[in-house]
Amino acid sequence: MSIVRKFGVLIALVLIVACSPEADRGEPAASSEPLPSWNDGEVKQQILDFVARVTDPASRDFVPEAERVATFDNDGTLWSENPLYFQLMFAMDRVRSMAGDHPEWQTDQPFKAILEDDRETLSTMGHRELGQLLAATHAGITADEFAGIARQWMDTARHPRFDRPFDSLIYQPMLELLDYLRASGFKTFIVSGGGIEFIRSFAAQAYGIPPDQVVGSSIVTEFHQEGDRTYLLRLPELNFNDDKEGKPVAINLHIGQRPIAAFGNSDGDLQMLQYAAGGDGVRLMVLVRHDDAEREYAYDRDSPIGRLDKALDEAGARGWTVVSMRNDWRVVFPAVN
Amino acid sequence: MSIVRKFGVLIALVLIVACSPEADRGEPAASSEPLPSWNDGEVKQQILDFVARVTDPASRDFVPEAERVATFDNDGTLWSENPLYFQLMFAMDRVRSMAGDHPEWQTDQPFKAILEDDRETLSTMGHRELGQLLAATHAGITADEFAGIARQWMDTARHPRFDRPFDSLIYQPMLELLDYLRASGFKTFIVSGGGIEFIRSFAAQAYGIPPDQVVGSSIVTEFHQEGDRTYLLRLPELNFNDDKEGKPVAINLHIGQRPIAAFGNSDGDLQMLQYAAGGDGVRLMVLVRHDDAEREYAYDRDSPIGRLDKALDEAGARGWTVVSMRNDWRVVFPAVN
Repeated sequence: MSIVRKFGVLIALVLIVACSPEADRGEPAASSEPLPSWNDGEVKQQILDFVARVTDPASRDFVPEAERVATFDNDGTLWSENPLYFQLMFAMDRVRSMAGDHPEWQTDQPFKAILEDDRETLSTMGHRELGQLLAATHAGITADEFAGIARQWMDTARHPRFDRPFDSLIYQPMLELLDYLRASGFKTFIVSGGGIEFIRSFAAQAYGIPPDQVVGSSIVTEFHQEGDRTYLLRLPELNFNDDKEGKPVAINLHIGQRPIAAFGNSDGDLQMLQYAAGGDGVRLMVLVRHDDAEREYAYDRDSPIGRLDKALDEAGARGWTVVSMRNDWRVVFPAVN
Repeated sequence: MSIVRKFGVLIALVLIVACSPEADRGEPAASSEPLPSWNDGEVKQQILDFVARVTDPASRDFVPEAERVATFDNDGTLWSENPLYFQLMFAMDRVRSMAGDHPEWQTDQPFKAILEDDRETLSTMGHRELGQLLAATHAGITADEFAGIARQWMDTARHPRFDRPFDSLIYQPMLELLDYLRASGFKTFIVSGGGIEFIRSFAAQAYGIPPDQVVGSSIVTEFHQEGDRTYLLRLPELNFNDDKEGKPVAINLHIGQRPIAAFGNSDGDLQMLQYAAGGDGVRLMVLVRHDDAEREYAYDRDSPIGRLDKALDEAGARGWTVVSMRNDWRVVFPAVN
């Protein structure tokens, strides 16, 4: 072998190692050991098989990269949602911190109950009280101000049971799944009933999902111009409720393509999974079932938060994938730094 | 120099060439000859300088990739909008093709005027008639059906003056600008007053902009499930008008970040440019001015379509970049295949 050919081979080897997409991203190769926090078993295998089928150009189920859209619910699917939706706990903390400027909250509900930690009254809160709470804590400020307030809460508040920041109560196996799908050419989106601007305040850092790939519920915003200053003012009025039938509608509006994989954990995700299932070709519909009271929480058919009833029946009838948190996940949360 | 060091240098050089992002994408290197269809001059230089400042890590104006958001109006900024907005010409063609099933259109306006090519009556069409036209041609079908119909029109209809497909009447210099920005780490978005699902039917192919990076006006859609079949039905009701003050609102809702560069051509884009200008750091605001009757069209302050009046004044007052189609563009449209 001539020295030129020898170094040609060396250069080729260096190129293969240095120029592979994995090397670019600084991530482990997708094929070497995907989903290390998932226990081996049927569920993990269904996920691996699906990805193999849609990414293999020789497969009859091959899907071009531009159509590899995966949508994820957030509350209960990517992070915890107990003892209350975290955004509700944020709103209640915000009532406490704003109470000095609102003496009327000492007597007005639902604020009085929040300030007195009156759980019996709080448990009767309906849509009207929730609207009052969101109007008082989420509106009347600019979009930039809200993002800063949400970010600050995330950096300081701690979960009552786990005593860690809320944005660390994300599911390690789902983080690996997001990485694995992205490494396999998928574009990953959040499609949540939670507030779109609340989720964006931590999604890039926590999940690697940029702001424009977050879809959620929203309140009305209004453009203002004052000289050179321009801002969006958040108004106390619902713009869109991204839950149930709203999820396919929002997916069409924001993403513009039917997902080929959809992940949820509650009846609020049923229509998103139905929508994903309704397309041509192979599809992956996944429900995360909370059956791990020891490491996280156990709840399904009768839970006021994250109720999983109709969607569980449909998953059984249609052969969708149901993840048992207890059996399928080796760990639940990432190690705290 | 030892042979090992010599070949070490060679390998390093090969790596630099082969592993650069440009090589990955199979595109020309951004630095070698960007914007070949732009004439040298102040406008081209302003664009190059802006990109250099925000992408150079040593620059005080450096912007991380995740924040490099650029938004583009579509009609009149990325493609032509004369003699009528192309989507309106699509709607009128659709009236003609649907007329057999609608005998009432022989007498009802605005349909009668379209079928009879009665331009005098058509020129008096207001919001009410436009709503009727869109309801008849854009609603009552599924999102998938609409996409197919729009795509078919794009593949068959031809522009009356240029006798080429409408999706070939895109601006070659703007295509190069989109490519150049993406090669410089920008994420490029369309933010258009036109219909979001209409634009998506050709934007990926024409501009390299995927469906989820298209923002536009929309009508209400409704999720339907019939057994295993699920679809979104388009209703004859406006959901969002993505024009003027609507553009910053939609940018916040869909993109979730303030753009650092914004491109438009009419007063409908003024608020988007104001919004981009209102952020911290260096910003690029650009207006495309149609002053080339020979190669395209010439219109501005008094035009019913693409009226450029207030925004032109503000550009002058604030030093925004104004592109002269006649002087700054070497070519207007791409060569037809």
